[in-house]
Formats: sequence, C-alpha cells, structure tokens
Amino acid sequence: AGPLGVAVLGYSFMGKAHSNAWRNVNAFHPSPQVAQKVLVGRDAGHVKEAAQQYGWEESLTDWRQVLDRDDIHIVDICTPGHLHAEIAIAALDAGKHVIVEKPLANTLAEAELMVAAAQRAQARGVQSMVGFNYRRVPALALAKKLISEGRLGEVRQVRVSYLQDWLADADAPMTWRLRQQTAGSGALGDLASHAADQVRYLCGSPIESLTGTVNTFVKTRTGPDGPEEVTVDDAAWATLHLASGAVASLEVSRFATGRKNSLEIEIYGSAGSLSFNLERLNELQFFDATEHAATQGFRTIPVTEPEHPYLEAWWPAGHILGWDSTFTNQAADFLTAIRTGTAPSPSFEDGLEVQKVLAAIETSAAQSGAAVVL
Amino acid sequence: AGPLGVAVLGYSFMGKAHSNAWRNVNAFHPSPQVAQKVLVGRDAGHVKEAAQQYGWEESLTDWRQVLDRDDIHIVDICTPGHLHAEIAIAALDAGKHVIVEKPLANTLAEAELMVAAAQRAQARGVQSMVGFNYRRVPALALAKKLISEGRLGEVRQVRVSYLQDWLADADAPMTWRLRQQTAGSGALGDLASHAADQVRYLCGSPIESLTGTVNTFVKTRTGPDGPEEVTVDDAAWATLHLASGAVASLEVSRFATGRKNSLEIEIYGSAGSLSFNLERLNELQFFDATEHAATQGFRTIPVTEPEHPYLEAWWPAGHILGWDSTFTNQAADFLTAIRTGTAPSPSFEDGLEVQKVLAAIETSAAQSGAAVVL
Amino acid sequence: AGPLGVAVLGYSFMGKAHSNAWRNVNAFHPSPQVAQKVLVGRDAGHVKEAAQQYGWEESLTDWRQVLDRDDIHIVDICTPGHLHAEIAIAALDAGKHVIVEKPLANTLAEAELMVAAAQRAQARGVQSMVGFNYRRVPALALAKKLISEGRLGEVRQVRVSYLQDWLADADAPMTWRLRQQTAGSGALGDLASHAADQVRYLCGSPIESLTGTVNTFVKTRTGPDGPEEVTVDDAAWATLHLASGAVASLEVSRFATGRKNSLEIEIYGSAGSLSFNLERLNELQFFDATEHAATQGFRTIPVTEPEHPYLEAWWPAGHILGWDSTFTNQAADFLTAIRTGTAPSPSFEDGLEVQKVLAAIETSAAQSGAAVVL
Amino acid sequence: AGPLGVAVLGYSFMGKAHSNAWRNVNAFHPSPQVAQKVLVGRDAGHVKEAAQQYGWEESLTDWRQVLDRDDIHIVDICTPGHLHAEIAIAALDAGKHVIVEKPLANTLAEAELMVAAAQRAQARGVQSMVGFNYRRVPALALAKKLISEGRLGEVRQVRVSYLQDWLADADAPMTWRLRQQTAGSGALGDLASHAADQVRYLCGSPIESLTGTVNTFVKTRTGPDGPEEVTVDDAAWATLHLASGAVASLEVSRFATGRKNSLEIEIYGSAGSLSFNLERLNELQFFDATEHAATQGFRTIPVTEPEHPYLEAWWPAGHILGWDSTFTNQAADFLTAIRTGTAPSPSFEDGLEVQKVLAAIETSAAQSGAAVVL
Repeated sequence: AGPLGVAVLGYSFMGKAHSNAWRNVNAFHPSPQVAQKVLVGRDAGHVKEAAQQYGWEESLTDWRQVLDRDDIHIVDICTPGHLHAEIAIAALDAGKHVIVEKPLANTLAEAELMVAAAQRAQARGVQSMVGFNYRRVPALALAKKLISEGRLGEVRQVRVSYLQDWLADADAPMTWRLRQQTAGSGALGDLASHAADQVRYLCGSPIESLTGTVNTFVKTRTGPDGPEEVTVDDAAWATLHLASGAVASLEVSRFATGRKNSLEIEIYGSAGSLSFNLERLNELQFFDATEHAATQGFRTIPVTEPEHPYLEAWWPAGHILGWDSTFTNQAADFLTAIRTGTAPSPSFEDGLEVQKVLAAIETSAAQSGAAVVL
Repeated sequence: AGPLGVAVLGYSFMGKAHSNAWRNVNAFHPSPQVAQKVLVGRDAGHVKEAAQQYGWEESLTDWRQVLDRDDIHIVDICTPGHLHAEIAIAALDAGKHVIVEKPLANTLAEAELMVAAAQRAQARGVQSMVGFNYRRVPALALAKKLISEGRLGEVRQVRVSYLQDWLADADAPMTWRLRQQTAGSGALGDLASHAADQVRYLCGSPIESLTGTVNTFVKTRTGPDGPEEVTVDDAAWATLHLASGAVASLEVSRFATGRKNSLEIEIYGSAGSLSFNLERLNELQFFDATEHAATQGFRTIPVTEPEHPYLEAWWPAGHILGWDSTFTNQAADFLTAIRTGTAPSPSFEDGLEVQKVLAAIETSAAQSGAAVVL
Repeated sequence: AGPLGVAVLGYSFMGKAHSNAWRNVNAFHPSPQVAQKVLVGRDAGHVKEAAQQYGWEESLTDWRQVLDRDDIHIVDICTPGHLHAEIAIAALDAGKHVIVEKPLANTLAEAELMVAAAQRAQARGVQSMVGFNYRRVPALALAKKLISEGRLGEVRQVRVSYLQDWLADADAPMTWRLRQQTAGSGALGDLASHAADQVRYLCGSPIESLTGTVNTFVKTRTGPDGPEEVTVDDAAWATLHLASGAVASLEVSRFATGRKNSLEIEIYGSAGSLSFNLERLNELQFFDATEHAATQGFRTIPVTEPEHPYLEAWWPAGHILGWDSTFTNQAADFLTAIRTGTAPSPSFEDGLEVQKVLAAIETSAAQSGAAVVL
Repeated sequence: AGPLGVAVLGYSFMGKAHSNAWRNVNAFHPSPQVAQKVLVGRDAGHVKEAAQQYGWEESLTDWRQVLDRDDIHIVDICTPGHLHAEIAIAALDAGKHVIVEKPLANTLAEAELMVAAAQRAQARGVQSMVGFNYRRVPALALAKKLISEGRLGEVRQVRVSYLQDWLADADAPMTWRLRQQTAGSGALGDLASHAADQVRYLCGSPIESLTGTVNTFVKTRTGPDGPEEVTVDDAAWATLHLASGAVASLEVSRFATGRKNSLEIEIYGSAGSLSFNLERLNELQFFDATEHAATQGFRTIPVTEPEHPYLEAWWPAGHILGWDSTFTNQAADFLTAIRTGTAPSPSFEDGLEVQKVLAAIETSAAQSGAAVVL
C-alpha cells in the first residue's frame, strides 16, 4: 500500500500548524507514510500560495472535491467551528478518516450528529478524532502515566486555568471572535475546551455537575460601523464535581495581562501532586509525598529524555520541543490508529462531552451560579 | 510618658508569634516603647514557662486581671476564636487598646458586637485592630502601593488561593479544628479569611456578591472514641464580584499535597499585573504592560531594598525577612496609630466584612452555588 | 532562477537537525526556495533510509560527487570534525556555498586553511558560515540587540557555563568521543566552543588573554578491549579577559548531574543585566538598573512575541519554539545572505577565533593555569 | 548557674545582627540562658542609644573593661577586621568564650596568632568560634547532611558564586572598604571568605591548590579629597582543586547588577546534585540520580519542616525564616558547645584555612594565574 493521502481544510493558524505536522511526521515517527495531497481554502490565490509554502502538491477551493478522490484517505478539518459538522459528517460518510480541530462543534446538536456519524464510520473501519493536541504534550502524557500508575494516590483537587491577554487592551477592535453569532462563545469555547478536556483526560473520571460564572469585562468595542456590543464571554470560572469525588476549579481568560499562553494544571492527590504550565511545556513538576519528609519537594522534570512519551522520536536528551511538536505527535498517533484499526483518542464522544461541560457553564452562569447536573 | 505595657492572651502558635513581635519591635522600628508585661494562659505552669521563654515579666491565668491594671495599655488577643468577642469588648470598655487575631470572631453576631465596642472605644481614643498580618508583608504593601498609584490600570481579574497540605493524610486523627462546634469552619475561617482580606485590601473595592462551594474530602477520622464525622470544610471555592466590576476567584484547601503555606495572589489589570506567593514572601512579581513589547515580562522584585515598605527598619539591601517579621511590622503600625491617635487598619469593621464573605460562601454552598448578595 | 539545491553530508544527530531545517525553512521564512537534493553518508543502506525519512530526493556515499553537480548550490557539512577542512575547502573551491557544523576544525592549522579558502571564495561571491546555531536562538538574538542598543551600559562581567551530565555515570563505556585522536578534545570542543562563541558574539569584543584549567574525572573506562584511558577533558574552566575590559568566566562539563543541556549565560553591565538558559530557550531574563529602585527586578521575557527576532516567521504570540528551530533560522539567514551577496555571520574567521580560545585554554592548563595571550 | 553574660563589640550592621541573635536565642532554642549585658562601641552617645534599642543592659566604650567583669562570659567581636586579633586573643586569655565575625583576620600572621590563642584557651575549656553564619542556614545544614549520608555519591564538581551589585554604579563614592590599607581586600575578604568556607564545609575536603584572578572594574572613585585610586578587588575568580579530587569554581563580585545577595552553590556528585541560593535561603534544590529516569528532576525542598535542621525551634511547617535567623541558630550552637564543653565549629583553624585560600588567590593573581599550592 502506498502512502496515505491527506487533505487539510483551512490554511490560517491551524492550517499552518497541521500542515507542519503532516510535513514532518514521517521524519520523526515510525508511523505510516503520508502524502501531502491537497490544501483547501476559499480564496484560490491565497490557498495556492499557502499550499506551496506548506508543502502541498495542490490546492482546491471546494472541500467537496476531496471527498470524491481516491488518493485522499485523511481529511483534516481546520475550518471555523460552524462548518465542522457538515464537512466531518460528509467526509466520514465518504469513507475518509477525519480529524477535527477543537472544539468539536459550535452547538450540542451538531456535536451529537457528528458522534453518530463517527460511530457509523467506526463500524466500517473509518477513524475519527478531535484535535485536543495538548494530550500529546509529552509532559502531560507523562502526567497521565504517573496518575494511572497511582503515583498520586487518590486524586482530590484539580486546578486548571488557561490565561491569555490579547484582549486586555480595551481599545482593541471588534472582531468576529467577539460576536456570539459567529464564534459561539469567547474564552469558553476557545480556552475552556482545552481545560475541560485535560480534567477529563488526566483524572479519567466524568464531570457530574458544576457551577459556573462568565463575565465580559469590556462590553463595547469599535467595529466597522462604530461601537458594537461584545456578545461573548471574556473570562469564565467553574467548579466541577467529578464522579470520583474530586473537585476541579477552572478559570479561563483573555484579559490576564502578561499571560501569553498559560494553560496551567495542578493536580493534588493523597500520595503526590503534579503541576504543569504550557508556557514551559517541556517541564512537569511532580511532588512525591511518599518520600522521606526531609527531602520532599516539587521536582522539575525536564521531559526531554528518551524515557519520556514521544521523546524517542525527536532529539537526544536535553533538547526541548516546540509547541508545534504536539500536532506532529498527534498526527503520528492518528496514523498508527488507522494502521492498527484502533479507535483514536480523543474521540468525537470526548469532544461532545467537553461541549456539554461548556454548555453547562453557560447554563449555570445564566442561573446565577446554581449547580447544573450533566 | 513611659513605655506602653502589653499583655498577650494565649501562648501557643500565635502567642509565640505575637510575643516575638513585642520583644523585637523597638529594636527595629522607631515606634513608641513597649514593655512586655504579662502573658496570660489557662495553665499556670505552662504559661509561666512560656512567659519566661518569650521575654515576659510575669504570667497570669485570668485575662480579667489585666483589665484592672494601670500598667497594661495594650491587650493582644491570641485565644481561640470563640473567646474573642467577650475579651475584646471587655478590654475596649476598660480603655485598653486591642489587637485581635484573625478571624475576628466565630459568628457574625459576635463580630457585630465587637465592631460596636470598637466604635465606642474609638470615640474615646482607644484603638483596635484585627490581625490580618499579611497586610504587613512588605511585598504586599508594595503591591498595594503600585495598585494605588495606578500601575495596574483598572483591576479586572484577581486569583487568590491559599493552599496547605497538613490534612492530606487521610489517617491523620480527629482534632478540635475539624469539629464545627469548636472551630466554626475549616479552611474557610482559617485560610479564606486571609484570602478575602487581601482581595478587599488590594482592590480597595467591596465584595458585592459571590457564588461558593465547600467540600470535605475525608468525611470520617479517628477520634478518641473511634470514628467521628468531620463537620468542617477541607476546601472551599468562590467567585467574587466586586463593586468595581472586578471578578476574583478564591480557593483554599488543606489537602493540596506539597503546598505548605501557599497564599498565592494574582492581580490582572488593564495596564499591568502582579503575582505573589507567601512561600517566597520577599518577592513580588510585576508585569508592566506599558513597556515596549519586546522587553515586557514578569519581573521578580526582591522586596529587600530600602526603597520598599518597612525595609528601612530591618537589614541592608538583599537580606530576606522571615514570616515572623510581619507581626513585628504590624505591632509597629499599631503603636504608631496609638501614638498619633489614628484609627489603625485593618479595623474591626474590616474583620466583620471578611466574616460576611465567609458566611456568604457557606450560604451559597448550601444553595448549590446560587449567588449570594452581601 | 530555480530553487537552491542543497546537499547535507552526514545523517546522524546533526544531519537530522540540518535536514529538518532545510525541509522546513521555506514553510516559515520568506527566504529563497531550496530543494533537498542529496543526503550523503558512508553506509549506502543507512543513508538511503535516512534520505527517505528526512525528505531528500536521493542519497550518495561519496561527497565528491556533489561537487560536480550543477543542481547543488549549497554544501552543508555535518561530518566528524577531522573531515571538515578537506571537504569545505574542496566545496568552496568548486563554487559551492558552505555551512560547516561547529567546531570549525580539529586543529588550528586546518582552521586557518579553511579561512583562506573562505576568503578566496568570498571574492567570487561564494558564501561560507560556521554553524554556531545558538546565535539564532531568538532570546540570544534579543540579548545581542539589547546590548547593542546600550541597555546594559558597559558590559563588565560575563558568566557562561555549559553543563551536561551524560558522562556522570563512571560505568558508561569508552567511545570515540573520549579519545583525543578522534575527538580532538572533550567538553572543550563540544561545549566550550558554543560558550566562547557566545562571549565573542554578545560582547562584541575580542578575547585577549585567558587562564584555563581542564580535568578528567573518570580516567579509565571500559572499551572493546578492556580498560582504556580517557584522553580528553571531562570538564574545563577559564577566565577570559576581553579587549573591552570585561572579564568572563567559562565552565563546561559533561559531569554536572541533573543538567541536561544547560548553556547558561549571565551578562552584567553598568546599566543592566541579562540571564539565559538553553533549557528554557524561549525566555530571556533582563534587569534594567535605570528603573525606579522600588520596582527593579529580573524580568522573564517570554521571547515568543511578534516583536522578537525571528518570531514573525513562526506562530502567534505565546507559542514556544523547540531547539530545532535554531537551525531553521540559521538556514534562513544563510539563504538570505546568499541571495543578497552579503557575507554570512558567523564566518569561518569567527570559527577560527573560537578555536584559538580552545587551544589557549589547553595551553594554559598545561602550564598550571598561567595566563596565555591570544 | 545563672545565665551566661554576653558582651557584643560593635553596633553597626553586624552588631545589630548579633544583638538580635542574643535577644532571641532563648525564645526559640533550648540552649543555656543568656543575659544581654554590655554593648561596646567607640562613640559613647551612639552606643548608648544602640544598647537601648537592641536590648542591652548597658553600654561601654572600652572593650578592655568587659574582660575584667565576672558577669561577662562571652565576648562577641563585630569590630572591623584589623581589631579582631588583639581583642580575641586578650579575651580568650582572660577566659572569655569568643565569637569572631568573619573573616577571622586581615592577615595570615594575625590569624595564626589567634589560632594559637584559641588552642591555649580550649585546653582550659574556653571556647572560640568564627562567625561563618551561613553554616547555620537550615538548607545548607541539610545539604551537608545529604552529602554526608552519601546521597550525592562522590562529589566531583562544585560551583560557588557570591554576587552583589552595590558598587555597580561607577559614581558611588570612595569608602574605607575600597582602600587596601583599611579593608585588606575587597570582594575577596567580604564574599569569597563565605564562599571558600562553604566549599570546605560541604565537601569536607581540604583545598590543595588553586589558580586565581582578581579585577578592579572601576579604578578611581571620588573621595573626600578628589579622585582616589581603588586599591582592592571588585571581583575575583578561582579554580580550586580539593584533596578529594573534586574541582570547584569560585566567583565573587560587587558589580553583578541585579544580584543583591546571591550566594549560589551548586554541587555535582556521581549520584546526585544540590543547588542553593541565599536570596531564597529557605529552599534547597536536590537532584537524585538514583531515581527512575522518567521522574528525575531537581526538586525544590522547602526547608521549613520539623524534619529539617534547626526548624523545630521555630514555627510550624511552611513558615519561612529570615536571614537573621542564621545568627540565632549560630548563637544556640555556640551556647550548647559551651555547656557541653565541645569545641564549636567552625573553629579559628577553619577561619585560618579560609584566609590561606584568599591569600593564595591573591598570590596566583599576581602571578598571572599560575597555580598556587596551599
């Protein structure tokens, strides 16, 4: 069998990041061979230029065209969220393996249809995956491993925050990202989706109920036609109760001046703790409470050694990886799942569960914080 | 006029810390002279020993005795919380200046009576103060100064957590601190009181409403008569709305394995941000968003220079202070307030406001997180 | 004109890193187009496999073949050091632009011949460069910029160390890297070359004299034929006097247990200071002594913003780069130099100057530390 | 027996710090009782004021007077270095236990006389000690313990630096500290003495030979009579060879802009490593190379727990100590040594050994760095 042909839909930030992953995956990982077949975008000139820059054989402007082609085996969807459902369902029904960027969809209804399509496809050996790429940060994969091995004992308390600051300037202009109609939500869909996925992933326990709060700090911004109301959240807070009995706090914001990409995760268990920050994604902090009291302390593990997840594929010990490597690792895992016929993780069901959490936060917030059962 | 005579009530942890402050305040600060007159405690033998160890002239077992003495000008109350109201009110009515350890009282009703007594006393030039000593951490005094000077612009988002781990061991025995009857509450009164005071202090804006959650992770512990129910919270969470429009998240726990005394405060404003951790109390992190973009970053200010609050009294530049120095600074400020006839800060009113926040968190938690207006 | 054809010589660690740079440079940087023509290695089977994995059109086993080909414009030499001189000189004389991995050569004599060849070639518009890739770490490029702009005032004191630990295990076996005959030197050529280049680069002032010490901690290791003497240094120390009056300390080691890739640089000037560590290569610490004393402190600049060197080519703000990005940036700069006909930096002369420093350290060490004038 | 009467000689920085120790030692440590008898200084008015401020019963202007008094058992010498020898020898001969602030003396000859006096006194049960107070930093006492227990295996490489910045301003005026006649040396005696003592203390192995460099960055400063030559070193560097085979680098400076009191110590062994910085003196970093490779990392031990050296005397877990606590711990250890008749450590011999190291650095520097055997 020849290489697996790939089409990426979208060529802006995420399209660039996914293209990078496909261009490099075979240089690092011993996964099936891929061919960078097609980059799809609406503007013919721009997408052609991007295709050349990012290493694609050709470019197209209509995503439907790739569904008919025998040389395309994987469809990777990096379009805005409101297009996810239609494309993903069509691609799966056409027998293409599908990756969808997070969040899975803009509405619960769409997400449920996508899950149904994924289940139909899975029955035919067609795989699907939602792109929570931070599951492929080696340090977080190591965190998952340590928790699974019981190094933390019983997990009780989780603190997750995702803080950025690109809206802190009150004079920044109106954009489609700040309109509910186009963006669905604000920090919630963009940042809390990653945060909620990590809580589910790392704790391995469903979120049963939560209380939530949302806030818009700057309520009006200047649009093309003058002052315009911001209709999405700038920040959100929630307290999550997990089936395991653990409690997690979640906080996301685009107003945290000085925080550029600070996804911070702290997990406290009866036997140990972990701490992580995406701004130093090559490090994991681990506290082992089973050690002698005189030498206990949070240790900073440089997750750059051959003993760590994904690292053998990369460089010798001590050479740090960039943020983009998470997509390369993700592509490798997806390819391996296709080859072995195993359902990839995180699945569309995982994406749906995250959507439910986001929706529950909005519902709770609309009810003055009263708890919502999922 | 001779020195101001001081009596401290209580000789365990807080009694030791306050004794240390009175023993040292005149060696560092140019405040009125004090005389360490009396240490009061219930056990005659133990308090005598403690008095000798901590530098007191004599010891007594009945706090009422100090109220009649002309050589006692200051009564410093370090007893358990349920005794605060009776002693403080009697002492103020007897014309003694009073410091009360935090939290002000175990109930709102008591706190209100104390405030009334303090107001009566203030009219007669008798001063009172509640011992939120962390207002006297030089780094936090510097934080307050920077915020007041407008270096953060408009404060929007605050994150405060106070994490310890001394209950993380599920086999730790039952104590009076884990019974609601004796302790009032758990992490809430002990840790959230400091946290809430800092939010009020640093932001300079009242807390108007909040949603809250509390949790008890280990519900039964072994007491003297076998298994016993834990009737206080192990951890608590709240989202606070301030009059200014700022939103603060608050999280406290005694189950955060590896965190020993981690009072962490982050304040995000439109023009800058601050970050602080009590485990490194000689440092303040400051991000100045008005600098050139290429050189922006959180700077770690070593708050050990003569230009910093309180530091001139201590050592030359670069020599860090211990946790105990906060009580010495507090004593100095209290003495200066007495000398100048100025109302000290934080007042009993401040203590009452914090109690209201704690009570509201419990009320909200009992209502599944529904918002409570203060 | 079509793309510039590239041949890389060598396919192990550095060959992989350089291949990665050529495969990705056009996807990020607006530099001339390249074509990954040939990967050269001695083992036909291995190099063929590597060529396929790293994206090369073909593989060859004899480097001389690439010199005759019109479709090869750039020869990138990643072979062991003792082959550098012969290949580089031949390639330059054949009109190929040449990059040589550091250190430039194993001996001063070879380095001098290479400089002569580079000067001949430069006169014909043929460019050459030595691969001190850490000059292309964005944080170090920013450091250079801040120093050049005078933000540090007069640079007085420099501390540079490069610490690794892969030889700390005394039972690790003998390798060619521990034989003077094959490796030339130990930590000196491998690590001190980078360190010395950074001192020269950042300070912009020649090293005039130095005192040096070298040490071999584990003097015998087990080779294929039993115990064998280690004939290179495990660690080295030097104090460097610069023409500017600045003094730099240099320390390198492969025995610093726990340090994986710790190139640490501190630069102290009359008006400010900088600090950098390669293990956190996306950050630069900057202390500005011209600020108000109350808010001075080392700030951690996240060098991930569009205002920072090289960053515009990569990802949006806040997304960290990996170690491998330094080679991609280096390739881009080399391509731009070729296009514009500008001499690239660092030149072979720079490489020669670093060799002189390394040789002087060995000479001084052999004279019990007595100063050597360069 | 009643309390041990103490006299402190000197009332500026060190006098204040030592007074603080004597005032507080009995409040924390279960050591013999002390009485703060006399503070001695040359200016009658100033010393009287200081005595009152720091808790002394009386003040005197002539140190000889205290030698005749039966109520003085301990003489604590905080005068400038050139007076150490005369006073210490007289006090020891008068049967007083003696503590001398570091460095022991300004010249080797004086130091040797002091050692002889200490040996004579020791034979009569009279104790002496040199005040390298950093041996009483709990984190460094823990470091010593871990090394002694073999947790680092064989110690190979040590890095010690002591960096301050109070002379970085070239316009700072001339002082007695910058004249060789009065100060003996510059950073060498002031900072390198601590650094060298730590190398000896932690490694437990004599320094056998060294190479050294010194430098004066600002050669002229403005004195009372106009421009004046600076005749001491601003910074110094040395490479030390220990009898054990370990090699230590040492660097001290008063020109390291931004470093306030940065005594930094790194110790690399075959089985583990340690790292410490005085600016965060409540923390010790420990790397354990015997752990599983996937979870190795430098851990930050908060040295604030009852299991740590000295901590039981202070506060509950998690409450950090100030710089001044090191003197209190030192006083406690000295008192215990007096009570038990054990020779205190560090002894005058230790002080002499450090002086020899400083002298050797100057000798080597004068010989262009050629090695000096101790």
